Amino acid sequence: MDTKLLFKQVYDYIMTRIDRGELKAHDKLPSIRLLASELQIHRLTVFRAYQMLKQDGKAYVREKSGYYVSTDDPEQELYEQTAIRPIEAPSHLKNYLSEIQRIPVVYQFSQSLIDPSLLPNLYLSEYVKKVFDIYPKLMGTYSSVQGDEELRDVLCRYMVRQLRVHLTANNLLITTGAQQAIDLLSRLFIRPMDAILVERPTYSAALDIFRQQGARFLDVEISPEGYDLDKVEMLMREYKPRFFYMNPTFHNPTGYTVPSAQRKHLVELAERYRCLLIEDDVFHDMYFEVPPPKPVFAYDTEGWVVYIRSFSKYVAPGLRICAVIGQPSVIEPLITAKSLADNGSPLVNQKIFLHYFQSERMQQHLEKLRIALQIRRDIMEEELASTGWTWVTPNGGLNLWIKLPDGLTVGTIRSESIRQSISFVPGTLFDPLREMQGWIRLSYSFVNEACLRDGTRRLADIAKRFK
Amino acid sequence: MDTKLLFKQVYDYIMTRIDRGELKAHDKLPSIRLLASELQIHRLTVFRAYQMLKQDGKAYVREKSGYYVSTDDPEQELYEQTAIRPIEAPSHLKNYLSEIQRIPVVYQFSQSLIDPSLLPNLYLSEYVKKVFDIYPKLMGTYSSVQGDEELRDVLCRYMVRQLRVHLTANNLLITTGAQQAIDLLSRLFIRPMDAILVERPTYSAALDIFRQQGARFLDVEISPEGYDLDKVEMLMREYKPRFFYMNPTFHNPTGYTVPSAQRKHLVELAERYRCLLIEDDVFHDMYFEVPPPKPVFAYDTEGWVVYIRSFSKYVAPGLRICAVIGQPSVIEPLITAKSLADNGSPLVNQKIFLHYFQSERMQQHLEKLRIALQIRRDIMEEELASTGWTWVTPNGGLNLWIKLPDGLTVGTIRSESIRQSISFVPGTLFDPLREMQGWIRLSYSFVNEACLRDGTRRLADIAKRFK
Repeated sequence: MDTKLLFKQVYDYIMTRIDRGELKAHDKLPSIRLLASELQIHRLTVFRAYQMLKQDGKAYVREKSGYYVSTDDPEQELYEQTAIRPIEAPSHLKNYLSEIQRIPVVYQFSQSLIDPSLLPNLYLSEYVKKVFDIYPKLMGTYSSVQGDEELRDVLCRYMVRQLRVHLTANNLLITTGAQQAIDLLSRLFIRPMDAILVERPTYSAALDIFRQQGARFLDVEISPEGYDLDKVEMLMREYKPRFFYMNPTFHNPTGYTVPSAQRKHLVELAERYRCLLIEDDVFHDMYFEVPPPKPVFAYDTEGWVVYIRSFSKYVAPGLRICAVIGQPSVIEPLITAKSLADNGSPLVNQKIFLHYFQSERMQQHLEKLRIALQIRRDIMEEELASTGWTWVTPNGGLNLWIKLPDGLTVGTIRSESIRQSISFVPGTLFDPLREMQGWIRLSYSFVNEACLRDGTRRLADIAKRFK
Repeated sequence: MDTKLLFKQVYDYIMTRIDRGELKAHDKLPSIRLLASELQIHRLTVFRAYQMLKQDGKAYVREKSGYYVSTDDPEQELYEQTAIRPIEAPSHLKNYLSEIQRIPVVYQFSQSLIDPSLLPNLYLSEYVKKVFDIYPKLMGTYSSVQGDEELRDVLCRYMVRQLRVHLTANNLLITTGAQQAIDLLSRLFIRPMDAILVERPTYSAALDIFRQQGARFLDVEISPEGYDLDKVEMLMREYKPRFFYMNPTFHNPTGYTVPSAQRKHLVELAERYRCLLIEDDVFHDMYFEVPPPKPVFAYDTEGWVVYIRSFSKYVAPGLRICAVIGQPSVIEPLITAKSLADNGSPLVNQKIFLHYFQSERMQQHLEKLRIALQIRRDIMEEELASTGWTWVTPNGGLNLWIKLPDGLTVGTIRSESIRQSISFVPGTLFDPLREMQGWIRLSYSFVNEACLRDGTRRLADIAKRFK
């Protein structure tokens, strides 16, 4: 007997019952044992079918209870799925975004990552070989906790040139991606119930990290004109947040850039109210045509800004190289936190990145990449033009932040999109208040041009159907 | 004027005053400004001299106050130095061991690491090139958060063969070294004031990590015969610890191995009292002549053991590959914790390690390495034979755990050792109660045979002087 077929038959059997309305949202599916016995098949076959239903978002699991029919509201569904954790698992640990991204689809618009085929993979693979000729003992060597000194030196000189700030290699700590930088800073500065200031909306994984540490959120909206600085000042004065986590350049998810004029003012507020600014500048190098304004960090003179700059994202994301830059009062305890967390990032990656970063090829690659991304942004905008959806054209970064027409909920289009193998991220994930129902983030950077056009067109068709 | 000389003169000037007793422990050194003016030299010269005094452990710094003369008690000194943190730094973040290891010495006996010249560096460097031929797009690819599936598959099959347990690749999570595994488990299971059970002594970095999470320690002594299981049972019953962190095979720092008979019993206790066992098996493959007993994990049937197995340490420590192995009830939330902490270890390292791990060369390397380490253990034991110090000869691992004669304090020999450029780790660091004054850990694995013999002989001379 062909078990593959059989398990698909069980899947279809359940789907048919759901479509007919015999099984409704939150109804319990027949137990595996019962259904196996009814259909006279092996329990593992039923198990596989249920697993597939779960994976497709058609069913969810309640610990020690069984499988249940999912709702059409993907938000609700997401909460339910993530609430289902074994007894031992603490409820404060969640990573909503990564759960959405794990759903396998053809039109992957939920990944704010660069299409691997835009990266200089082949060249780099050849390049790596040279690196191992230079450092034959590389594999046997640990990095220092702070990160390879040669790499810190090179990145430091690059930043000094680019930002015209005074820095030494000691102001830098190398982390495994920006994610680890945010996590270590959170562990350092947040105690349970501490207030922190965040943008609304903001990077959802950062919110998850802050929640894990037990933070309370104060929020300030980000618009194409920047922040309401009066509100920022009021919040700093009244609530003394531990820090303001900001992403002022090609902001994720909105793509907005806080104007230069506000940047200097933000540093003044930070000094006055002794509120650290954590500036996450992940998209700095991904501009279209015009480079972005100087980072807020460049205006800092008294050490109130910590600057997170991811470097490998646009070149070799497999290497995960990020630098946190700040004054010793922050970097020194951060090194201790890093030593406890993983005792230093692997050295191999750091050396490989170092040598590529110094090559001419690197600048050429970035220039080509910017053009390629701009073309993809244009394709997505073209295909969405007829939808009646609205957004502000981003001048850099990897995402469109879309406002849906009034009355259209994310849930409605999300179920249909997933059915058509299109994924995107619901706006609520980026909202510290979890309320922004009418927004979605579409990333145009991860799939190739043909796939991007095709998928966006399908999405536009869905949009028109619900107009 | 030769500033190098001048700064050394300032150094000597202060040292002379200390030696004469004009400056005593905890006395404040003259301010930099004052001394510069008295000696009519540049303030930076004084600053450099003071920095060097600090680096040599002769002076310490109090924030916003100045430089002070260190005590001869390195423990006390260590506390003082690490207490000096900028305002922003939380006091719960410490990594004592890494601070000791950062002191530059010739005879490095405080690093429980393999001498890089014992590693197959050149071979691996050639090998890596092949890996990039196999995966030309490797640099552009993120790993999944859980770790590369191919690697998990291979490690899983290896463990199944070696331990005869039932596992799939889903039972494994890849972390950046064992350190990260311990940290993620702590974040998952420890809330402030939670009791956890630890060995006395135990791995000091683990204690630092547990302290960071606010754990209370329950301790059980480890001896060459294992644990007092009645005490373990009493502690589990009375205090319900969140877990028992154990390192039962070639234990760090003692080198003791918990006998097989106790291992099964430990699993029964874990089940009965619902206390997770976290088994850190970092030295498993580093045995001399006879392989160690099966890990405690191999006796687990109900999912009460989480197994931490470091793989790259003996091969390519630059890669930092470790696996945490356990049931889905632990591994699933651990994946979420990992996704928040760094969103996955770099893929490049995982693929490089994977291919070497599967090669015949790997087994040959391990066999040679065991012999080399045994020879080093023998050299250290030979040279210490005349000291009157006592220890139990370890059958694996990288360390000797030395009991000093009654009356001799670690502080006494430590100052003299540092002066002779020998470093080791004071026993108190490994003690959850911070009391084990009469013990030190000597690692014989990090320096070459000649250096090992020379340094140990010097240490033995110091020992005899204080006999």
